[in-house]
Amino acid sequence: MDFNLDPKIVVIGGGTGSFTILSGLKNYYKNITAIVNMADDGGSTGQLRDELGVLPPGDVRQCLVALSNSPKMRDLFNYRFDSGSLDGHAFGNLFLTALEKMTGSFAEAIDVADEVLNVQGRVIPVTLDSVKLVMKTKSGAKDIVGEYQIGNMNFKISQKRPKLELTPKAKLNPEAKKALFDADMIVIAPGNLYGSLAPALLVDGMAEALTMAKAKIIFVCNLVTKPGQTDGFMVDDFASELERFVGEQFIDLVLFNTDEPSKNLEARYIKDAEYMVGHNPLAKNSKHYQAVGCDLLAKELPKNNLADKIQHTRSYIRHDPEKVAKKIKSLFS
Amino acid sequence: MDFNLDPKIVVIGGGTGSFTILSGLKNYYKNITAIVNMADDGGSTGQLRDELGVLPPGDVRQCLVALSNSPKMRDLFNYRFDSGSLDGHAFGNLFLTALEKMTGSFAEAIDVADEVLNVQGRVIPVTLDSVKLVMKTKSGAKDIVGEYQIGNMNFKISQKRPKLELTPKAKLNPEAKKALFDADMIVIAPGNLYGSLAPALLVDGMAEALTMAKAKIIFVCNLVTKPGQTDGFMVDDFASELERFVGEQFIDLVLFNTDEPSKNLEARYIKDAEYMVGHNPLAKNSKHYQAVGCDLLAKELPKNNLADKIQHTRSYIRHDPEKVAKKIKSLFS
Repeated sequence: MDFNLDPKIVVIGGGTGSFTILSGLKNYYKNITAIVNMADDGGSTGQLRDELGVLPPGDVRQCLVALSNSPKMRDLFNYRFDSGSLDGHAFGNLFLTALEKMTGSFAEAIDVADEVLNVQGRVIPVTLDSVKLVMKTKSGAKDIVGEYQIGNMNFKISQKRPKLELTPKAKLNPEAKKALFDADMIVIAPGNLYGSLAPALLVDGMAEALTMAKAKIIFVCNLVTKPGQTDGFMVDDFASELERFVGEQFIDLVLFNTDEPSKNLEARYIKDAEYMVGHNPLAKNSKHYQAVGCDLLAKELPKNNLADKIQHTRSYIRHDPEKVAKKIKSLFS
Repeated sequence: MDFNLDPKIVVIGGGTGSFTILSGLKNYYKNITAIVNMADDGGSTGQLRDELGVLPPGDVRQCLVALSNSPKMRDLFNYRFDSGSLDGHAFGNLFLTALEKMTGSFAEAIDVADEVLNVQGRVIPVTLDSVKLVMKTKSGAKDIVGEYQIGNMNFKISQKRPKLELTPKAKLNPEAKKALFDADMIVIAPGNLYGSLAPALLVDGMAEALTMAKAKIIFVCNLVTKPGQTDGFMVDDFASELERFVGEQFIDLVLFNTDEPSKNLEARYIKDAEYMVGHNPLAKNSKHYQAVGCDLLAKELPKNNLADKIQHTRSYIRHDPEKVAKKIKSLFS
């Protein structure tokens, strides 16, 4: 792989995690493609899907913004209305929604946003089918439907490591498939394991694309556990869950954090039952991939994103985009 | 006036009428400034003012769209959501509103829209004060407040030729004042006489600017009367009302239509008590200005504006932008 020839980087994920990874990688690589989860049904995005029957714009918007080289339009796309009947809507979601309604094509909507935002690279929906995430219940009770609900619920013991599906069956977007086959490196972004990464990986055709891809595949592991969902998970648990979704051992390398946040900050998380994700070097299920640990923690609040107050308060223990990108670059050069 | 030196044209008005005039003039003149009424409080615009405390975006949007050289963005700005909680909002109104909320400046919002729309010329709010139109009652009853209400009500006999004010007092935007002083030609667009032209002309400083301006001032007269408001009005009645708003005889030329619509179309209007505006060459109050009549009627539905269904059905007897612009050009060269 000759990096002077603009290697092709693909990042798979949802909104916030992909935003972080893309923001960093864009300073090192020109040719970046974000492949984005399309099962989101919460908040502004959920309301637009319900009321207007559009595909979910939220995660796509965050990826477009991450790759944008136009600061003013970036702020505008992340701007959230905070009162009245528009309350909670991110402007970028309305932009994509209006264009999809007008042109009848979400892909065309992204193309226009791409131009307005002066995006470096491409953003591709993982599927163009309108799908919902479904969690099958073991007890034979009614399935739980909806990414937002599944991503934010407390699993009972019997619901741990749940069986998830997309309904109706989602077909991998041919554009996404092509990007995966052409990629020199594929990065799975960190994110809500069941409510964001699973729906991106469960799409029909993703397993084949990931196993056939010539690219090295790296997973940037989550920093903290999610109470009620991934309690007690270590690095290899996250990785093995991703491979369970896909049904293949497709990961070549897991990049995990080894640094510790301030005691104060960690205590605040522990109060909410969120714990730093540790790594057990003796874990059995990690044999087929390389695990690389280093300091990946952000020491400051993220910049460039002041307009989106909601995202701004979502998390404080977070990846430093620059540290992650630099490490990835060093691993692959 | 040497037209090879890009004469400076200023168009004063509201939304729909200015849209028509600007759409035509932009094919003949490079240097066009639209000065826009800012008292609108109906529909999407009224809701945004009420809920978010912004300045009215609707008429500004229409003028920006008229001067835009980017067909796709033009359609997007005029796109109206047609269901859910966004129902009735024109996308461009949301664009201007988000930017005003984000930057704290309506003028800055227009600058960004200007760039995105690739606008030929400039669009300037007549005032940057947040104002309402008020109709004083002769009987001492409560004043009637609101452009939408005043523009759509049936005047009683005692309310004909009403006394209108802006509240609080609105100051002419310095940018608008400068454009008026620098102009080579000023065009007053046709429009709702009391609900659109009056509030644009009533702004403090407008009278002085219009009387001091070196430009020739032309009024493109309305085509039909408005039932309950301008019943029986002829060309000179419209012109004299404009001069009453300003308090000065500022008009140099009135351009009026002499063509007739099809009998079917006219009959449909007459059923709604809307009559073609005629011209009486012997009218006393027309002595200080020239009155020029010719065929100004559009024979086809307007193009370039398919995205805005509401505007599309508003009116069928309408000015042909090309005929108006061509005539203006011939009068001033």
